[in-house]
Amino acid sequence: MELFEAIYRRRDVRDFGPDQIPRKTLLKILDAAHHAGSVGLMQPWNFTVIQAPASQAAIVEIVAEENLKAAKDYHGEDREKYLSLHLEAIHTAPVHIAVTCDSQRGGLQVVGRNTMPETDLYSTCCAIQNLWLAARAEGIGMCWVSLIDPERVKQILGIPDEITLVGYLCLGIPESFDERPHLERQGWKERAPLEDVLFFESWGQQNAIDSPDTESSPLTKEGLRGVTSP
Amino acid sequence: MELFEAIYRRRDVRDFGPDQIPRKTLLKILDAAHHAGSVGLMQPWNFTVIQAPASQAAIVEIVAEENLKAAKDYHGEDREKYLSLHLEAIHTAPVHIAVTCDSQRGGLQVVGRNTMPETDLYSTCCAIQNLWLAARAEGIGMCWVSLIDPERVKQILGIPDEITLVGYLCLGIPESFDERPHLERQGWKERAPLEDVLFFESWGQQNAIDSPDTESSPLTKEGLRGVTSP
Repeated sequence: MELFEAIYRRRDVRDFGPDQIPRKTLLKILDAAHHAGSVGLMQPWNFTVIQAPASQAAIVEIVAEENLKAAKDYHGEDREKYLSLHLEAIHTAPVHIAVTCDSQRGGLQVVGRNTMPETDLYSTCCAIQNLWLAARAEGIGMCWVSLIDPERVKQILGIPDEITLVGYLCLGIPESFDERPHLERQGWKERAPLEDVLFFESWGQQNAIDSPDTESSPLTKEGLRGVTSP
Repeated sequence: MELFEAIYRRRDVRDFGPDQIPRKTLLKILDAAHHAGSVGLMQPWNFTVIQAPASQAAIVEIVAEENLKAAKDYHGEDREKYLSLHLEAIHTAPVHIAVTCDSQRGGLQVVGRNTMPETDLYSTCCAIQNLWLAARAEGIGMCWVSLIDPERVKQILGIPDEITLVGYLCLGIPESFDERPHLERQGWKERAPLEDVLFFESWGQQNAIDSPDTESSPLTKEGLRGVTSP
């Protein structure tokens, strides 16, 4: 699959069909994740693949509990709408992957990590995004499960205290990939236009300042039309 | 460009040729970034594109200072080797992009963010990885500059206190893309084999446990051969 197609058609998938993920495909996806860049080539990540039904069930239970706790923050119609999002619908995923970050990997002197130690976590997220896109290209759906108590999950998987659980991912083969994000389809929230998140030269400056040597089409809100995706 | 090719051929680029990035290309790359997934469709990111020579020079100066500070942690030959990495070689990049995260976007109730508030930063990193891959596919080189004092950069760009600078990116058109990562080519560090970062079922378990209903090729170290990339 072409890169931009994978980017635009990637979805947070929460409904999985009964088919297993072929092992070669799973390894191909994991290898793509492992080929993310990392600060100082630190490669701080580990991928723990969970297929044992008992572990999966224990973690699905944690997600269901956290989802019900979160629902308490909503009231009346909002609560019904929240529960209808079915955020907990991950119990059919045949493969779970816990993505962790070891902040001590590479020792104390990791090139480029002096001023922003958190770049190890950021590198791990880049690996997850590679994994997500690679899954999409292989027809595998993925859901990043964020409604989770990371310490409880770490306990189930025997992950040491000093290791950070960055992402808990569920993968499987979906019936189909939605055209639009789940929350958009459910009428919960929409994607903003690119121009709303784009500044030029300094914070809050929404139009590019034109200088004589720039191209004829200025980087303005209007200039964005036709460039952005469906 | 095909997704896996973009993933395997993405590099941290530090040498840029004199050509400008066409505006359409820049916007295409930014739109790809904006199409990352985000917790609760929060889209917490902003992209501030910096092309003004004065701002660029001020930030290049910060990087050079931090690089010299970092060099003090190395001694003798190590120090010479460190300095030979030319981490500060970003002054030729025609485009800088500051990628920030607004942790308050979407208000207090962001779906899925109850237990792991840091997922907003993680979503922003996913956007950066999209940007990096999209740049690669368009023949644009990118460098994630991590040797930076984020507060000083925020001051130069007028970024408010409550906004987090996640990544400072330099982009341009490179002479070529290296086959291997910069630090690997310089003999500083190598990419680990995938098997070193892969566990099955629980932390530290390097071989998959086979059950009668799994496929014939077990998920073992040996099973990995031939699947992984060049």
